[in-house]
Amino acid sequence: MTWTQPFAADSFPSGSDAFPHKHLLGIASLQKWEILYILKEAQQWVVLNRSGAAKHDDRLSGLTIINAFFENSTRTRLSFELAEKRLGADVVNFSASTSSVKKGETLIDTVNNILAMKVDMVVMRHASPGACQFLSERTNAVVVNAGDGTHEHPTQGLLDAFSIREKLGEVKGKKVVIVGDITHSRDALSNIYCLQKLGAEVMVCGPTTLIPKHIESLGVKVEHNLQRALEWCDVANMLRIQLERQDAGIPYFPSLREYTELFGLTQDRLNALGKEIVIMHPGPINRGVEISSEVADGNNSIILNQVENGVAVRMAAIFLLAQGIKRVS
Amino acid sequence: MTWTQPFAADSFPSGSDAFPHKHLLGIASLQKWEILYILKEAQQWVVLNRSGAAKHDDRLSGLTIINAFFENSTRTRLSFELAEKRLGADVVNFSASTSSVKKGETLIDTVNNILAMKVDMVVMRHASPGACQFLSERTNAVVVNAGDGTHEHPTQGLLDAFSIREKLGEVKGKKVVIVGDITHSRDALSNIYCLQKLGAEVMVCGPTTLIPKHIESLGVKVEHNLQRALEWCDVANMLRIQLERQDAGIPYFPSLREYTELFGLTQDRLNALGKEIVIMHPGPINRGVEISSEVADGNNSIILNQVENGVAVRMAAIFLLAQGIKRVS
Amino acid sequence: MTWTQPFAADSFPSGSDAFPHKHLLGIASLQKWEILYILKEAQQWVVLNRSGAAKHDDRLSGLTIINAFFENSTRTRLSFELAEKRLGADVVNFSASTSSVKKGETLIDTVNNILAMKVDMVVMRHASPGACQFLSERTNAVVVNAGDGTHEHPTQGLLDAFSIREKLGEVKGKKVVIVGDITHSRDALSNIYCLQKLGAEVMVCGPTTLIPKHIESLGVKVEHNLQRALEWCDVANMLRIQLERQDAGIPYFPSLREYTELFGLTQDRLNALGKEIVIMHPGPINRGVEISSEVADGNNSIILNQVENGVAVRMAAIFLLAQGIKRVS
Repeated sequence: MTWTQPFAADSFPSGSDAFPHKHLLGIASLQKWEILYILKEAQQWVVLNRSGAAKHDDRLSGLTIINAFFENSTRTRLSFELAEKRLGADVVNFSASTSSVKKGETLIDTVNNILAMKVDMVVMRHASPGACQFLSERTNAVVVNAGDGTHEHPTQGLLDAFSIREKLGEVKGKKVVIVGDITHSRDALSNIYCLQKLGAEVMVCGPTTLIPKHIESLGVKVEHNLQRALEWCDVANMLRIQLERQDAGIPYFPSLREYTELFGLTQDRLNALGKEIVIMHPGPINRGVEISSEVADGNNSIILNQVENGVAVRMAAIFLLAQGIKRVS
Repeated sequence: MTWTQPFAADSFPSGSDAFPHKHLLGIASLQKWEILYILKEAQQWVVLNRSGAAKHDDRLSGLTIINAFFENSTRTRLSFELAEKRLGADVVNFSASTSSVKKGETLIDTVNNILAMKVDMVVMRHASPGACQFLSERTNAVVVNAGDGTHEHPTQGLLDAFSIREKLGEVKGKKVVIVGDITHSRDALSNIYCLQKLGAEVMVCGPTTLIPKHIESLGVKVEHNLQRALEWCDVANMLRIQLERQDAGIPYFPSLREYTELFGLTQDRLNALGKEIVIMHPGPINRGVEISSEVADGNNSIILNQVENGVAVRMAAIFLLAQGIKRVS
Repeated sequence: MTWTQPFAADSFPSGSDAFPHKHLLGIASLQKWEILYILKEAQQWVVLNRSGAAKHDDRLSGLTIINAFFENSTRTRLSFELAEKRLGADVVNFSASTSSVKKGETLIDTVNNILAMKVDMVVMRHASPGACQFLSERTNAVVVNAGDGTHEHPTQGLLDAFSIREKLGEVKGKKVVIVGDITHSRDALSNIYCLQKLGAEVMVCGPTTLIPKHIESLGVKVEHNLQRALEWCDVANMLRIQLERQDAGIPYFPSLREYTELFGLTQDRLNALGKEIVIMHPGPINRGVEISSEVADGNNSIILNQVENGVAVRMAAIFLLAQGIKRVS
């Protein structure tokens, strides 16, 4: 299994062929070469996953992994679960809705109990930003952040970078605009870190109420006009508008209709450009809101590639972190 | 593993030893010999399942199957899940109650996302008649219909035919009455198609409000008097009265008590016959409503055989469909 | 794998090296040597579970086990599920909240249906005391009681005894006080039986409203003053106060604050003793209610050891019961 992209400028430090982290908490704390190492490792799992009826590897047999989802997320949980099972690990699932969390147990007690059962790795989604970091500092768990509140969703950042590179050859030098609710999006933050570290230019675009103040301090451009953003970029990553937030009486814009009018990506907008751009979306899609069906299903959409690459990137991350566990034991 | 039933009249077309369908959407579209082929294949899995502590076969190792239940059904999900795990596949479950379906995603997007994770087969239950067909036409999934609204539940039809043949030697020439709520029953429809194709005569019996108009066009007899139906038949398949529908204020008959009086199967009714008949029920049973405990637990009841054969028939169907996947990859 | 504790006085009857029970329904019906046999067998699984990334044994490959939880319990379900998966069994889960139990099916019908699918072992939690016994008498299932109402929770009793022996060398002669809601606790009852059979002295302590009348008839001491209980004991097993019962308007004591004042275990209380005692809790912990954080996390707390040993004890029990299944088939 060889990785065919040229990496002259991105070559790894000599002798460091293992991933030197115990956890995967966020992209912010990763070096550029570490990101590239995960992406390189993911390539073999893309190949395996495409190999039809033989998508199983027993390399992690004997390892126990729990998916502890304190917030529901079917697609992310499925993606991790498939990654873990294809690597041969023993997998158990935990969801907050049926757990002793309801009985008043603290997060650390819940996780320490799980770890006492000799679970090797905790893939955790939690509503609180920093929950994974908090946990990693107070338990012996190997923690994989599967989304912690508005903070980070590192495997999303990695799979997006992987997908851009797969489509465009490299990330370096590319211009990527992230459109939508930047304030509440962990996907946006992990994307910004990941893309910048790999040498891309990043812009965010949306109504002022959904762009965090001072976000320029992260080195991103801010644009409130979608058409101008599209003219600038090579890639548009359209974030999901969380309808449930709007419904809950916490509107950040006057109406869905107005949002779609101003920030929805349609074929007309794309046709008005003098070029083609790559279309991304972390899903689930609200068709006709932030993106039209024509665009979502169009030739330049790599939305389903993102989903596919998600499994491979997660297999890579889990496999690399598991090497550390194997060495300890 | 040999199949001992004589099949002289049902011999397979020469050279067609594989199942020539990509999906299992319903019985209506199957040829008689295809039904027989699944039943023949199921026989080996009955044997395996009875083999005590060695009920595992790794023939589908490396295949990924998802049970996507947009409607809850514990027993059907368990039956499929056991079938899949005993064949060695990697299995993940999905239930609508915790899924992004709630976030407004379309069915096709949900399934395309699942498929992008390189899931090979989707076993789907859905409240909408035709949902499986719809999906099969718009995605690349291999779809197994585990019940789509009031349309079909093909593996139920197959396991019922298998169970009748196991008990009576053959299906051909047998008289089967299906009693109860024919209008809302996918089991009834799959049974009618399956039994007729195998040469049985089928009658439906129930109050007029629960028998679809024009059902005679399917070639079934209609009878509103249970005793007369019992006198006619060799096999009585007692459908479950869906109490929840009655409770929801959509009554199709005046009272449960009246229903039981007219259409409940009791030992007294059976004793009044000058013969023995085979008793079936797709479950879950409402004891004392459509069937008395004495009848359900009696010597001529094959209700638990149906459940047992369900796993074997599902293993056969999944295994046959998987051959197509293996060839593609 | 050798068991290093001296068992001179506890030696097994010659020739009886298998566990002579079909089910594990409670501790009350076990002989002392049978308890010791399970604990001895558990030792090898403690070792396996600590062996890092190779915690998998395929000895139960081909066996099908269902976790049928008619009451939710994340930690107990996870512990059993890990035990089963590490032994290589095919595992399916069932929870009442999504089951046909809601459709009015009887418990016996539900379980007979599951068994008809050739499930070998049913690990069951149920709200009704005696549900497991009831089931074992009316079905062919091998039943493992994972907690039946206020009756027993035998694997909890076993893991507690295992953990005391691990910490103190032996159970015989030790003084154990169980503090809290004895009336509603299956853990208390299984503990009393198990510890007494192994030769410990047992005391219960709590407000009069939470101590069953006539409990002295089981041979336990009763004490309503926590400090006196602590002075007497070598081990204090602090039960969880079920806040949900208090919240539901069925208070057994005036206020949580008063309960904590009188029966909460704090470091001050421990410091007032002229000795060290071992601290246990079945979890989940209400920190600051029945136990302070300082005590729960202190050096003499074996709370997480209990959790760890729970997996091993369950592996032992399941493995021993499975020998009977293998012989039958």
